[in-house]
Amino acid sequence: MKRVYNFSPGPAAIAQEVIQQAADEMTNWRGCGLSVMEMSHRGREFTEILATAKNDLRELMAIPDNYKILFMQGGAIAENAIIPLNLIGKKSQPATIDFVNTGHWSVKSIEEAHKYAKVNIAASSEDSGFNHVPARDTWMLTPDAAYVHICTNETIGGVEFDFTPDVGNVPLVADMSSNILSREIDVSKYAVIYAGAQKNIGPAGLTIVIVRDDMLGHALPICPSAFDWKMVDEHDSMFNTPPTYPIYIAGLTFQWMKRHGGVAAMEKNNIAKAKLIYDYLNSTDFYINKVPAANRSRMNVPFFLKDESLNGKFIAEAEQNDLVQLKGHSSAGGMRASIYNAMPIEGVQALVAFMKDFEKKYA
Amino acid sequence: MKRVYNFSPGPAAIAQEVIQQAADEMTNWRGCGLSVMEMSHRGREFTEILATAKNDLRELMAIPDNYKILFMQGGAIAENAIIPLNLIGKKSQPATIDFVNTGHWSVKSIEEAHKYAKVNIAASSEDSGFNHVPARDTWMLTPDAAYVHICTNETIGGVEFDFTPDVGNVPLVADMSSNILSREIDVSKYAVIYAGAQKNIGPAGLTIVIVRDDMLGHALPICPSAFDWKMVDEHDSMFNTPPTYPIYIAGLTFQWMKRHGGVAAMEKNNIAKAKLIYDYLNSTDFYINKVPAANRSRMNVPFFLKDESLNGKFIAEAEQNDLVQLKGHSSAGGMRASIYNAMPIEGVQALVAFMKDFEKKYA
Repeated sequence: MKRVYNFSPGPAAIAQEVIQQAADEMTNWRGCGLSVMEMSHRGREFTEILATAKNDLRELMAIPDNYKILFMQGGAIAENAIIPLNLIGKKSQPATIDFVNTGHWSVKSIEEAHKYAKVNIAASSEDSGFNHVPARDTWMLTPDAAYVHICTNETIGGVEFDFTPDVGNVPLVADMSSNILSREIDVSKYAVIYAGAQKNIGPAGLTIVIVRDDMLGHALPICPSAFDWKMVDEHDSMFNTPPTYPIYIAGLTFQWMKRHGGVAAMEKNNIAKAKLIYDYLNSTDFYINKVPAANRSRMNVPFFLKDESLNGKFIAEAEQNDLVQLKGHSSAGGMRASIYNAMPIEGVQALVAFMKDFEKKYA
Repeated sequence: MKRVYNFSPGPAAIAQEVIQQAADEMTNWRGCGLSVMEMSHRGREFTEILATAKNDLRELMAIPDNYKILFMQGGAIAENAIIPLNLIGKKSQPATIDFVNTGHWSVKSIEEAHKYAKVNIAASSEDSGFNHVPARDTWMLTPDAAYVHICTNETIGGVEFDFTPDVGNVPLVADMSSNILSREIDVSKYAVIYAGAQKNIGPAGLTIVIVRDDMLGHALPICPSAFDWKMVDEHDSMFNTPPTYPIYIAGLTFQWMKRHGGVAAMEKNNIAKAKLIYDYLNSTDFYINKVPAANRSRMNVPFFLKDESLNGKFIAEAEQNDLVQLKGHSSAGGMRASIYNAMPIEGVQALVAFMKDFEKKYA
């Protein structure tokens, strides 16, 4: 079976064991005579699949009991509206939301929040081309903000938080779409963690929301019921029909992670993978990455050929070597290697070997 | 390979050919070395999958050129909020929405609309236990309503529209979640058709919205961008990452329908399937269905055992015969056979044979 190394930023590589298990179980899930896609979400089989996925995620991230796990739809982009719709109701209107702006995904969150609240940009790295995370002591927070919003990994800039900020009693909300489950974090430092599943978890169409219980029950009257976290929680993520097949694949991924040492082992592997490629980037000026060491993303490694006229050749020859989806985001140009949990170290080794060969050939 | 006949109301049976093809293509889609789940939504492979699915749906339903096809998330329940958020902005506020209330799903739509608009119940069959569709000439419509909303098939009551209402110049909006693609309709009679995919189309987590182009561009400022139809259309259903795998399965289903004669052939088959079971119900008083013939749903056939103490035995013995998910909705009790497009006539024959045997045994 031909398989390629897939450096797509998302939807992204899924562990081969998971894909194989999904293929094996597709026509007849554990002898029940049905595909998971065909199961009633309220039947005993799917109820078990959902409960297991939730318990496994709780175990993997050590999510405290006072946090709810919600399986939702619409991705992080929809959640950018759903979060203010759920959280600003605690404050007198118009409420203020503090944002730390570290790149493309932060900007998306900020734009959407303007629909519902006053926005304060507490810190931003825009002036330096979004190439770092502003140090915590430079943030100008609003004392009575509804919440502080951060994006812990920016996939386009390749910039990742290397710290969990202390924001006092104001709820901390984090878009972790692109680095959830890739490193150990202390969930209790956050009020809300949200993530589209299509990077480290599974197929597109599933959004994970981890929310502290005191954040529930404050939705604005204009919040669609299907996106009111309290309603979703009260119905155990079945207020509307959940995206059952994506939840199943997410569950298989959680089990794959548990078999392979959990988040700690993933993090160790991610550090090794990132070191391989960044060490090489440090050693050459044929390729360029301008992010300071502390904020270099372990998940998304953007790099630029010094001679950009070689870009087309790089992509074409990489594909000939079964290394696909390396083209950078249209807004950034250059290249980007997304190396989420499911990318094996062999894939990164193959990429670095190719990059070295390419350098030798064209330098 | 054991396969059972799955009478689930949704998520529901998917054509066996589709499930088999999905299994075969899971690890390596057409030689590209990737599962569809892992493909970038912006890559050439998935772009082709999405475009083909859209074109096939347009062909199957004969959707006129001035209608847009949107692939969205959140199901019909989310869409119940998204529709007023997109449509009432054309009117001075508060706008009025006319509803025809034919059962459980109509009620859901009505409840959600109260968040955003004045609601007028133009007609209702609530007084008679939601057992029929009120005749068009009894509807009390509002002349300047933002739109008229109907649910063309009620899965719990088993009540289906047998006509397309003329509502003059007011836009007609239809929840077709449970009978889309099951019968030929004239799309041009509707302003908006929406449907969760998990009954006649594919896996849960995908919502199909078919919208006439003059309905775009009127979203309220509070409408989340990801649910603003104009934004979704302008980005070809990729304003946010779409539910790629459910779209792929929907596309396989559309191709399966085309191979098997399209909607006309599905309708013919659905008529034959429904006739089999309703003819038998007419012939006995061991089982009961109270819906008048004209409004009996071809998709969902609720029935009750005259002696309800036999309910448990019926379910258990049906399962022993590989006939699963026949239990009625908790609010209705009794039994329900959901026989969407993907249910072969052999499944309905097996069910009727079982029902006859059961009657002989216990009558």
